[in-house]
Amino acid sequence: MSENTSKTKKAVVLLSGGLDSATVVAMAQKDGYSIHALSFRYGQRHSIELEAADAVAKHLGIAEHKVAEIDLTLFGGSALTDDIDVPKDRNESEMEADIPVTYVPARNTIFLSFALAYAETIGAKDIFIGVNALDYSGYPDCRPEFIASFEETANLGTKIGVTEDERIRIRTPLLNMTKAEITTAGSKLGVDYAMTISCYDPDTTGAACGHCDSCLLRRKGFREAKLADPTRYQG
Amino acid sequence: MSENTSKTKKAVVLLSGGLDSATVVAMAQKDGYSIHALSFRYGQRHSIELEAADAVAKHLGIAEHKVAEIDLTLFGGSALTDDIDVPKDRNESEMEADIPVTYVPARNTIFLSFALAYAETIGAKDIFIGVNALDYSGYPDCRPEFIASFEETANLGTKIGVTEDERIRIRTPLLNMTKAEITTAGSKLGVDYAMTISCYDPDTTGAACGHCDSCLLRRKGFREAKLADPTRYQG
Repeated sequence: MSENTSKTKKAVVLLSGGLDSATVVAMAQKDGYSIHALSFRYGQRHSIELEAADAVAKHLGIAEHKVAEIDLTLFGGSALTDDIDVPKDRNESEMEADIPVTYVPARNTIFLSFALAYAETIGAKDIFIGVNALDYSGYPDCRPEFIASFEETANLGTKIGVTEDERIRIRTPLLNMTKAEITTAGSKLGVDYAMTISCYDPDTTGAACGHCDSCLLRRKGFREAKLADPTRYQG
Repeated sequence: MSENTSKTKKAVVLLSGGLDSATVVAMAQKDGYSIHALSFRYGQRHSIELEAADAVAKHLGIAEHKVAEIDLTLFGGSALTDDIDVPKDRNESEMEADIPVTYVPARNTIFLSFALAYAETIGAKDIFIGVNALDYSGYPDCRPEFIASFEETANLGTKIGVTEDERIRIRTPLLNMTKAEITTAGSKLGVDYAMTISCYDPDTTGAACGHCDSCLLRRKGFREAKLADPTRYQG
């Protein structure tokens, strides 16, 4: 796939290298956007996801892909950035019960802030993020009320939001979709999920653990969508 | 000065090394907070301000000082991070007319997001930022409506905001003070302004240009407060 960057409107897409964000890239392309993807090396234990992000970016033929280096281990406070075990084999009621230790303090606020800086410098009005309020890990910064509030903040705190007629929009096309609906939609758009890594605790080759919240939600998505799961699991 | 960190409540303070943020540290200490200061090496041309931040932190005897490395030259778009001339000798009406080229896209949104992550990991509820809506450079992300919106976003996007009774507060003690009032208040609290650097375009020794917006506002502050200006100027 490729795109004509001269005629299309630009969008910034937060691209982790996982299933959701890869699908969002394909959806935004379908909507006619030229894609400027942004990934983060933030000290995550699963930084191999950045290789997946690069592969997805190349496969989908996007306009630009930037990787910001922000060391969130400066603060710590999460199983994804500290030496804390990633929970395994939790059932749905456990996932819904509280905010898990894999929550990274203020991560989406930070990610969206950088996306906002990126958007402002390239003149993009649309920022896409693959948050999901149905099949998700219970993070406060994936909820629609957070996204709506950030959008308001973005328009108040930037030149683009203050001086231009158009508003900055935080786009969340996956918000009310199940993981099964997401995998179905992405497959139709040509997303190669074999390239994506969702696991919080992959081995050094990128093989998934199959048991963390993220793996369980992903597995459920392929199963309920009746799609073959292309994930490479450990062992 | 020193503080008893065991009994006091914690606050995160954004500390640039300039006049305003140094004053905010002293004010927050006076209010009984244990200070956890956060500075950024973001690709600013005036990164020597970080030496000033370190000196201020040591002088005021704060609990902790962290420096986050975030390379905003990845995006560019500002005279502070790009090879664009810093405007000199602008008068007040020029400063008020539009958003200057020294505006860094989404900078305060990014800085506050990191402060939020820091606050959440240490259990602080209060984040101090030295924004000023009177004698300022016309940046959208210094306005009270932006700060209020960010506070709302912060409470919606964090564990601390969602699960605890207390709210996260973005504190702006300088918001409605003139630069003269700020320098007067800080001097009474023992802030040594000779240690601070406000200039956007200092030389390699930290001497101020005396002509950028930030120098002009600072000079005006000392003049109107009838305080000796301890700033070391170039030439």
